[in-house]
Amino acid sequence: MEWKEGGITAAKGFRAAGMNAGIRPGKTKNDLALIVSDSLCTAAGLFTRNKVKAAPVLLDIETVKSGKAKAIIANSGIANACAPHDMENALKMQKAAADALGIDQAEVLVGSTGVIGVDLNVSAIENAMPELISLLSDEASGSDEAAKAIMTTDTVKKEQAVSFELDGKTVTIGGISKGSGMIHPNMGTMLCYLTTDCAIDAMTLKKALKEVCDVTFNRISVDGDTSTNDSLIILANGTAGNTPVEEGSADYDIFKDALKSLCTDLARRMAADGEGAKHLITCKVSECESEEKAELLAKSVIGSSLTKAAVFGCDANWGRVLCALGYSGADFDPLKTDIAFVSEAGCVPVCKDGKGLAFDEDLALKVLQEAEVIIDVNLHEGNEEAICWGCDLTYDYVKINGDYRT
Amino acid sequence: MEWKEGGITAAKGFRAAGMNAGIRPGKTKNDLALIVSDSLCTAAGLFTRNKVKAAPVLLDIETVKSGKAKAIIANSGIANACAPHDMENALKMQKAAADALGIDQAEVLVGSTGVIGVDLNVSAIENAMPELISLLSDEASGSDEAAKAIMTTDTVKKEQAVSFELDGKTVTIGGISKGSGMIHPNMGTMLCYLTTDCAIDAMTLKKALKEVCDVTFNRISVDGDTSTNDSLIILANGTAGNTPVEEGSADYDIFKDALKSLCTDLARRMAADGEGAKHLITCKVSECESEEKAELLAKSVIGSSLTKAAVFGCDANWGRVLCALGYSGADFDPLKTDIAFVSEAGCVPVCKDGKGLAFDEDLALKVLQEAEVIIDVNLHEGNEEAICWGCDLTYDYVKINGDYRT
Repeated sequence: MEWKEGGITAAKGFRAAGMNAGIRPGKTKNDLALIVSDSLCTAAGLFTRNKVKAAPVLLDIETVKSGKAKAIIANSGIANACAPHDMENALKMQKAAADALGIDQAEVLVGSTGVIGVDLNVSAIENAMPELISLLSDEASGSDEAAKAIMTTDTVKKEQAVSFELDGKTVTIGGISKGSGMIHPNMGTMLCYLTTDCAIDAMTLKKALKEVCDVTFNRISVDGDTSTNDSLIILANGTAGNTPVEEGSADYDIFKDALKSLCTDLARRMAADGEGAKHLITCKVSECESEEKAELLAKSVIGSSLTKAAVFGCDANWGRVLCALGYSGADFDPLKTDIAFVSEAGCVPVCKDGKGLAFDEDLALKVLQEAEVIIDVNLHEGNEEAICWGCDLTYDYVKINGDYRT
Repeated sequence: MEWKEGGITAAKGFRAAGMNAGIRPGKTKNDLALIVSDSLCTAAGLFTRNKVKAAPVLLDIETVKSGKAKAIIANSGIANACAPHDMENALKMQKAAADALGIDQAEVLVGSTGVIGVDLNVSAIENAMPELISLLSDEASGSDEAAKAIMTTDTVKKEQAVSFELDGKTVTIGGISKGSGMIHPNMGTMLCYLTTDCAIDAMTLKKALKEVCDVTFNRISVDGDTSTNDSLIILANGTAGNTPVEEGSADYDIFKDALKSLCTDLARRMAADGEGAKHLITCKVSECESEEKAELLAKSVIGSSLTKAAVFGCDANWGRVLCALGYSGADFDPLKTDIAFVSEAGCVPVCKDGKGLAFDEDLALKVLQEAEVIIDVNLHEGNEEAICWGCDLTYDYVKINGDYRT
């Protein structure tokens, strides 16, 4: 398996584009993205479990039931959620893309992200379609522009691709994602679109996507807020020419491993670019009885406002970590628990058997000043582990979210 | 029922004191509190459900089983949790108070709040006992000094008292509490000590305390972090001379109502003084099928980082409120949900049947600039309601918690 350039256009037979369509007056950044496959794809999607679902999510849940799709159109700026004409506009957006591409409306998936409760200026999207189509490209630039178009408060675009051998053929999976605030995915994540030229049926694709999502996007949190618009979609057009991947085969494992690597990378980028974040916080809980329990514990740590603020302040305040483990709801023995802070600058054990250790504060400061801080928790009770990712809580998070609408 | 001055010394037969004992070098604020009853009290306590419990909490859980106590000693600065000699020091603290007061060690309850993982300088407490005893007073000043001594990042001391007639006698309940960060009580709260001269047995006292705690302290959150040290303790010395209150009687209801008013007042003060807070956020969910569901929904709203940051920015971003309702785990119909922002400056309906309403942004700004902002949610599905309290997320929260240990 190797990393590749090109994001969403790295896999054969996919084109993408992004542009400014004027979704929000006065903004000049790209706000409309289009991803198209040259041939019909098998498709799978995972969506927010928030009881309040945006119109494009409700529409995509229906569309993806066929297991087929050919294109994705997505905008940023307006979430098209809880607005007077939300479903009407989602359907108009779907139709605009279908008409411009000359394909069936049921083959188009739709995504939106941005402010909730405001009607989408769908005529801006309709008017932009001819130009958007003309910009479609199978080069890396196509992916770049699409990745930029789905960004909101993101400070960096997130795209990545991997390729690997399957059945003697080179198979590629690529993706773009966005997400910076309201990030606490629960089935799917903010917006993430993946393309692959792998031949694989829709059922198997969905299974792999679900298994991978559970240990990647569902293990990150920026602020504990599960969005109304979370969508993770994958299109597979089979252009690689491999024998179709079947569940339970060695090929399935290879495909899933590559997909997991890709999604881990994108998930980590999302957490690291959490609104206002200065640090990526990785919490690894090991030697646990079960993976489920390890995940529950690790999620509690990365979700703790006090732990997040301490990492921002480069303060080795491990008591907050132990406290967060304690209120996670998981059953464990605090008096067997060890905690260390780890980064490229070194490793500082701070707690042994639930009690504080004397430690070198200068080294701890250096460790916590690195871009990625690993909080290493060992329960000494079993053989399972889980890793979750979050980010620190900073002044900028408050700033960004104190006046998001303005 | 009427409000009274005097906090924890308002009830007859209680004295209190507070002083600086030098728990943390270089700090001059009060850090040691003592509360003493002239006669033996019935006692009840509720403590954190965090799996990680501080030594004083573990000790008090045992002590309070007898249903009897005469004094409470508490320090701020060091939490006496997860430290090498935590239980040893809790016992020494208990003994120091008992010896100085000439009472049985088993009649002393112990509390600590502050940094986790650091050994308590218990000799400072032992050395301070003679002076602390000499400062004991049944005047309001005694309560004031004790209230100050349990403060950490609190910006205001919290004390209150109520009196009411029971059986022809005047009964008083008073209390002091502290809590500003790591506030998300789950059975009990940070530190809250209540005294009453009511005659009431320990079982009945505990029942009333539990029922009241569930709808007061257990309905506030500052940051979602449930502390290792949460303790809510009440001492009742019977000095009022009323016929002992029995469960199920009219007197029980009168006592419980007064206790609830007192605890609501103290809980609201804690939420309003949440670390860095500029606003008290009150979320009321009404016309709900059940109180439990209404509480789950209201807690999700006051716990949402995005909603909290929006209130800080005086931004009527109701989409975040609906989003938080949606990920609460409660089953409800978003398309029947109404939301309004309410304060002393007016009322602004922002969402009707799950869709955004046009509203006056200038009025909304005025409403959100008030010290208490009420988020009024109506589900139109039943007759139950619940109110929860939180605070906004501000730069100062991040500042306070970025370098708490230093």
